[in-house]
Amino acid sequence: MENQKITTEEKQLAPILSADELLAHWQGHRGLTRRVIEAFPETELFAYSIGGMRPFAEMVKELIDIAGPGVEGMATGNWGSSGEWDHSMEKAGIKSKQDLLDKWDEVTEKIDRVWPTIPADRFQEVDIAFGQYENPIFASLLYFIDNEIHHRGQGYVYLRSLGIEPPPFWER
Amino acid sequence: MENQKITTEEKQLAPILSADELLAHWQGHRGLTRRVIEAFPETELFAYSIGGMRPFAEMVKELIDIAGPGVEGMATGNWGSSGEWDHSMEKAGIKSKQDLLDKWDEVTEKIDRVWPTIPADRFQEVDIAFGQYENPIFASLLYFIDNEIHHRGQGYVYLRSLGIEPPPFWER
Repeated sequence: MENQKITTEEKQLAPILSADELLAHWQGHRGLTRRVIEAFPETELFAYSIGGMRPFAEMVKELIDIAGPGVEGMATGNWGSSGEWDHSMEKAGIKSKQDLLDKWDEVTEKIDRVWPTIPADRFQEVDIAFGQYENPIFASLLYFIDNEIHHRGQGYVYLRSLGIEPPPFWER
Repeated sequence: MENQKITTEEKQLAPILSADELLAHWQGHRGLTRRVIEAFPETELFAYSIGGMRPFAEMVKELIDIAGPGVEGMATGNWGSSGEWDHSMEKAGIKSKQDLLDKWDEVTEKIDRVWPTIPADRFQEVDIAFGQYENPIFASLLYFIDNEIHHRGQGYVYLRSLGIEPPPFWER
């Protein structure tokens, strides 16, 4: 027990990363995803698909629907009702690449605004994200980010198969 | 200055995640990537490509070459010489899916073995990963993981376009 206590204290004295660093990591990824959206031609963004998968715009809509309510849930515990989720472009008023980019930018600003209100000890709290996924908050956030990287990687294949060079993965 | 100090102390008292949790996160992703390798037919793993991209086996070889020397560099500061890097399958003796899975498993075991030797305060240290990429260790590791998710997402598109259902993204 004494050993365990010392180990825990050592970890607290040497954090892996700070909340500010985690925010910068997330927003760095969001900036890259924005450039991938921009790289798509207007038509293909909404219509192009490989192997029966969704067009990239629909994947991006999912990312928007996770990140916007997600940062609020992380801060407040209010995740909205998953029954209210509607990923349809029509109801969200998204008809063009610019509409999608505008929604993306709204969420980027919301994340910067809400992030500083997340309590310092919140990341280790277990909560049921979106009323469905019970995990520590840090794990839910990593899932949001990982899901973005996953779908963006798929967008890279769409772009390559369209003969378009995607933005460099390492530039954030 | 006094405010800054308090903020730093608060962060230390409420870490985002522990080293153990970060290891579990990494290995969870590696487990999923292993299942994606397994899902590929032998021939397509080494030969199938979309849009001039690499076959999935070559992407996996890159992930192996990063994670194995990477965890050692994180622990010791010895990243090996990048000039020694050789991503060729031949020199690595990889001729089959089983060879690739064996190399993958070697690295998985190495990560579990080396991880506990990483000093607690190492994650915030700035080091030049692979003699090229100057970042805090936590950021280099997140890059390794993100790069795996990125290429694995591309593997999902390859599988889908081959008519193969990939393993669920959310299962780790």
